[in-house]
Amino acid sequence: MPRPNDRSPSALRELGFTRGFTRPAPGSVLVKMGRTTVLCTCCVEPKVPDFLVGKGKGWLTAEYGMLPGSTNTRKPRDKAGKVDGRSVEIQRLIGRSLRAVVNLDKLGERTLWIDCDVLEADGGTRTASITGAFVAAVDAVNSIKHLLTVPVPEVLTDSVAAVSVGVVGGEERLDLEYVEDRDADVDLNLVMTGSGKIIEVQGSGEEATFSRKQLDALIDLGEAGIRAITAAQKAVLGGAWPFA
Amino acid sequence: MPRPNDRSPSALRELGFTRGFTRPAPGSVLVKMGRTTVLCTCCVEPKVPDFLVGKGKGWLTAEYGMLPGSTNTRKPRDKAGKVDGRSVEIQRLIGRSLRAVVNLDKLGERTLWIDCDVLEADGGTRTASITGAFVAAVDAVNSIKHLLTVPVPEVLTDSVAAVSVGVVGGEERLDLEYVEDRDADVDLNLVMTGSGKIIEVQGSGEEATFSRKQLDALIDLGEAGIRAITAAQKAVLGGAWPFA
Amino acid sequence: MPRPNDRSPSALRELGFTRGFTRPAPGSVLVKMGRTTVLCTCCVEPKVPDFLVGKGKGWLTAEYGMLPGSTNTRKPRDKAGKVDGRSVEIQRLIGRSLRAVVNLDKLGERTLWIDCDVLEADGGTRTASITGAFVAAVDAVNSIKHLLTVPVPEVLTDSVAAVSVGVVGGEERLDLEYVEDRDADVDLNLVMTGSGKIIEVQGSGEEATFSRKQLDALIDLGEAGIRAITAAQKAVLGGAWPFA
Amino acid sequence: MPRPNDRSPSALRELGFTRGFTRPAPGSVLVKMGRTTVLCTCCVEPKVPDFLVGKGKGWLTAEYGMLPGSTNTRKPRDKAGKVDGRSVEIQRLIGRSLRAVVNLDKLGERTLWIDCDVLEADGGTRTASITGAFVAAVDAVNSIKHLLTVPVPEVLTDSVAAVSVGVVGGEERLDLEYVEDRDADVDLNLVMTGSGKIIEVQGSGEEATFSRKQLDALIDLGEAGIRAITAAQKAVLGGAWPFA
Amino acid sequence: MPRPNDRSPSALRELGFTRGFTRPAPGSVLVKMGRTTVLCTCCVEPKVPDFLVGKGKGWLTAEYGMLPGSTNTRKPRDKAGKVDGRSVEIQRLIGRSLRAVVNLDKLGERTLWIDCDVLEADGGTRTASITGAFVAAVDAVNSIKHLLTVPVPEVLTDSVAAVSVGVVGGEERLDLEYVEDRDADVDLNLVMTGSGKIIEVQGSGEEATFSRKQLDALIDLGEAGIRAITAAQKAVLGGAWPFA
Amino acid sequence: MPRPNDRSPSALRELGFTRGFTRPAPGSVLVKMGRTTVLCTCCVEPKVPDFLVGKGKGWLTAEYGMLPGSTNTRKPRDKAGKVDGRSVEIQRLIGRSLRAVVNLDKLGERTLWIDCDVLEADGGTRTASITGAFVAAVDAVNSIKHLLTVPVPEVLTDSVAAVSVGVVGGEERLDLEYVEDRDADVDLNLVMTGSGKIIEVQGSGEEATFSRKQLDALIDLGEAGIRAITAAQKAVLGGAWPFA
Repeated sequence: MPRPNDRSPSALRELGFTRGFTRPAPGSVLVKMGRTTVLCTCCVEPKVPDFLVGKGKGWLTAEYGMLPGSTNTRKPRDKAGKVDGRSVEIQRLIGRSLRAVVNLDKLGERTLWIDCDVLEADGGTRTASITGAFVAAVDAVNSIKHLLTVPVPEVLTDSVAAVSVGVVGGEERLDLEYVEDRDADVDLNLVMTGSGKIIEVQGSGEEATFSRKQLDALIDLGEAGIRAITAAQKAVLGGAWPFA
Repeated sequence: MPRPNDRSPSALRELGFTRGFTRPAPGSVLVKMGRTTVLCTCCVEPKVPDFLVGKGKGWLTAEYGMLPGSTNTRKPRDKAGKVDGRSVEIQRLIGRSLRAVVNLDKLGERTLWIDCDVLEADGGTRTASITGAFVAAVDAVNSIKHLLTVPVPEVLTDSVAAVSVGVVGGEERLDLEYVEDRDADVDLNLVMTGSGKIIEVQGSGEEATFSRKQLDALIDLGEAGIRAITAAQKAVLGGAWPFA
Repeated sequence: MPRPNDRSPSALRELGFTRGFTRPAPGSVLVKMGRTTVLCTCCVEPKVPDFLVGKGKGWLTAEYGMLPGSTNTRKPRDKAGKVDGRSVEIQRLIGRSLRAVVNLDKLGERTLWIDCDVLEADGGTRTASITGAFVAAVDAVNSIKHLLTVPVPEVLTDSVAAVSVGVVGGEERLDLEYVEDRDADVDLNLVMTGSGKIIEVQGSGEEATFSRKQLDALIDLGEAGIRAITAAQKAVLGGAWPFA
Repeated sequence: MPRPNDRSPSALRELGFTRGFTRPAPGSVLVKMGRTTVLCTCCVEPKVPDFLVGKGKGWLTAEYGMLPGSTNTRKPRDKAGKVDGRSVEIQRLIGRSLRAVVNLDKLGERTLWIDCDVLEADGGTRTASITGAFVAAVDAVNSIKHLLTVPVPEVLTDSVAAVSVGVVGGEERLDLEYVEDRDADVDLNLVMTGSGKIIEVQGSGEEATFSRKQLDALIDLGEAGIRAITAAQKAVLGGAWPFA
Repeated sequence: MPRPNDRSPSALRELGFTRGFTRPAPGSVLVKMGRTTVLCTCCVEPKVPDFLVGKGKGWLTAEYGMLPGSTNTRKPRDKAGKVDGRSVEIQRLIGRSLRAVVNLDKLGERTLWIDCDVLEADGGTRTASITGAFVAAVDAVNSIKHLLTVPVPEVLTDSVAAVSVGVVGGEERLDLEYVEDRDADVDLNLVMTGSGKIIEVQGSGEEATFSRKQLDALIDLGEAGIRAITAAQKAVLGGAWPFA
Repeated sequence: MPRPNDRSPSALRELGFTRGFTRPAPGSVLVKMGRTTVLCTCCVEPKVPDFLVGKGKGWLTAEYGMLPGSTNTRKPRDKAGKVDGRSVEIQRLIGRSLRAVVNLDKLGERTLWIDCDVLEADGGTRTASITGAFVAAVDAVNSIKHLLTVPVPEVLTDSVAAVSVGVVGGEERLDLEYVEDRDADVDLNLVMTGSGKIIEVQGSGEEATFSRKQLDALIDLGEAGIRAITAAQKAVLGGAWPFA
């Protein structure tokens, strides 16, 4: 089974960012990974949750949702009282991933709210969300630069990007799109920093199993993908990139 | 108090439509009314709610939401069990407005799902939603033209558009933006067909009152606005416009 | 299609009020509009919602419900987590209507709670609720007269009444009862003050449409109805009527 | 501590029933026990819950609520997701009590819906609800007499009434009103049939304790009260009383 | 119909307690009444609900649940928004029963949390819960003895135990197990103190009826059972038993 | 920072299983991993969810909960409408892990319900749940052996076990207990089959990061732990072990 559009197993889909897509949030990035499209906003709220009040620290929290028209079969909105376990998992992952590169002690008593809303889903929405959320977070933190007591790179200590890898028809592939993801034997999401450290690895045999050797190959593939995504983040941020 | 950007009291903001903004839904329109931005999708589901099964009729339902980053102060998502009365009102209005121009008896046993999600809110989100939803509905119904037993204009019998009018500082104004809406003494939403019939009029003194004479002037102003919006809908749909 | 009981198109149904129907709430009015029966209570709570604390202002809020036995087919109670969109719309309308004649700045830091519970529904429950709620509010505000810093007419600045009008079989009619409402082509609710100002107009083609001329005729009819209802409110309140 | 209005320890408050208080439900009874006022309706639905479909049996279910204005301090409505344990207990008690005198096997595949809504609460709302619900049930079952395959007394096999008794200041008293109930050391509700059988006894020391001897005295007192209430039910039903 | 295992009508099932079954809660008792198995824990929280703050009093609250695997047919967990009326009734009963022997005025500003979770259900889970909860409460209160300002018996003023009795096939029986409970004509739960006072009696004809004479016989039977259970509680607590 | 009880970095805590801990569920296993104690039950329901009806396949689903007394600070029960994201994640993981070794096509139209309820939590509750759930599933599937159309090893195709590993104070450690987990820099859960295939790997820097080299070392450590746990599962199942 060849990849759609003859993509090579180690190639990313086309990746694009539109910064400032909407105006109310200081960070607002429309990220496209192939046809997967996510609006990532980052708002800054000048207060923290109750459990942090008075500790001089900040907080970062993330929420994830899919618009009803984002999937081929319309996705019903969450009804009151119904738990969408998958969304819960994903927003917890986004939050942990971003917090790994934010020094909350230096943020001051404010909260960064990351919202990732999927406008079109074609595989890899959670990894695109993390990748786009970082760009939105940079714009948001830069917008409050004058309020911080330290330079931005002491608040945002590294960049973060994410990518999916998987085994499809016995072949290790980078950045699965929906038709591949649906048929994958293994699905692994990798979140890493721009400096090459791992934040999170989540690999699942999707009710099947895989070998240690496959695991190692998938992580190799993902690491290469992360390097390319990091470069794209740096390019789109240009002078706003906080690191040397 | 002059209008922002020296707009004349009877002028609309710039109005734009992007058809096919996303791909999964057959109707997908990004509508912009000034800075107010709404993604309107229309999905076609090949079944009807239980109360209509076996009656040979179709159904149309609408949902409305605001993304958290769409407002200057982040808008929390609906929590389980919490009722957002304003959203409920708006989605009921959108549904009634569209059903007024859809002949459900001729649609067949299928449901049109209208979703209006506000990406940026700057006043008039409910009227922009109705205006954009009609364009999305045209694209969706055209996409199932081959499945219908009658021509499209017997299913979509007229066009529908909506606009807000209000009294600000004693002056009747068309198409209020947020800073005006916030200070308006009267706020009236008008929904009409392309052929000049009224579907819905909702005017409120917003906890104040207004005279019959003001009511009449506001409706005159709104009727003119609806004519301009209808022309814009026709222009963007081009050959897809279902009517003569 | 003639009206039930040969009622003339411009005639109201019999309208009656029982003040002091129950004792715990200072305002407690059983209002009957034909067979439509609503218990309207107005409680006074010596505090305000969080967003108003310390501002020296008062608040007024309204809730609306229908008892299960109030309709021909038993109406299930709201289940936890289920949103009854119609009730939400109605209680928001009741609240806005009453707040239009209450000067919250002069009420002091207290909340007026309006509760309208329908015991029997035969059309026009929302307008009967507003009409009865005003009478209950007068009794409640009079009961705290000694606690106010200004005379009652500076707190309750005008009376408020509401009525429905509609087009049935091509004829404009005042005060629709259920069998008419069910078949109406147009349904319009009008809320006005005793001094003849409009508070709210909500007209809907109920998934059909109507002309500007019909709209004007309906509002004429409703204005006359409001005058009669206002007279009835004044009569039942007698010496408790706060206005000259 | 003497009783309010010099009531004797073994005297009931004034008890009144208004049959046909509202029209949509075939059974609709406003019951007053002193100032405690409950609207009891009984609707007949021509179907049964899923677990009974096809078994040729009927069902009876009860719901209980208090209107917000029924208590001296306004009682908030149930919010979505919030459990009012007391209401749950009471409606289960009402349902069990009525089912004890209804032969569901002879009712046919239909459901009797009992709704007890408290308009004014002054102690004993649960027992007044049971007492009034029986009268409403008689009217409802009589209204479907022509649909039954057996005479009414084979469906309603006995009457049911309920009363509260308690120990206040060391004295056993019948039919406590609110100010007594609040201070009672023991509170016991007794549900019995017209023929003198016990359906339910629920006695609680309200976080205190009581002796076996007190228990026996309370039940004696309650039995006498039940006899008087049964006589009142028979009187108000007149020719509609189903029993010899 | 003889009893399972030829048990005599007045015999209890085998009753066992394992104190310290788990370690985090200071009171943790696995109680077994025949095969009915309940884990009762008692935690001490150093604060009280809002309505008691600053009053120098303590609080006790109880919760009850059944594990899904505790019944022959798997019992679904409570879903968000769904009310399990039976659990609500039971946990309110457990709370009232324990509060009857706890002097909250002497507890200090702390809350005793009683949790009764049924691991295996074979009839009598609510009475076993009360019986076990008392033992857990003793261990918990003893664990904070050094923080109390009075001796333990002024906080825990008496012991509490509970038992079910019922009429099965015309015979009064003590401590019904599930197969008896299912077929019982009358089911009565009795909660009493070690000193022989009644805390609560709840008898129900389970949609049938019973005579005053049967009621008296059942209470006699229950009183004897309570004495035996109290002795077992005393035995397992040994030196921890707070009373003379 | 040495390990509690001088445990070596590569040593498991004491692991014990009590099969048949309760009787209603055909699989009921109390698993203890050190002081972490989980009751794992497996029920067999003779039907499948709607989406599988008529497909001749079976289903397996898992739920996870913590009893309130299982933690040092009492854990409140899930309230209606509140989502516990962590529990949702864990029960999804348990379900996926078990489904990886169950051939649903051969199970017949029945559902295996896995319930894992934590009685005492001391780190590693999710991995202990998976390990215990497998033993319960074996007992449950063996109990319906006579209803299956294939031998048990064609339904349960492999064993499954899970373990946590982590980096604490720079040292890679196996099977973290709570005090270690709390301070871990990296936390990784590994789920594998008895035959050495990986089902799931979830590693998180817990808002920090780790290197590829650390990842590899942790997986090595985990694989050794899984082998030991598999041996313990085999030992406790004895003749019930389905594999050669």
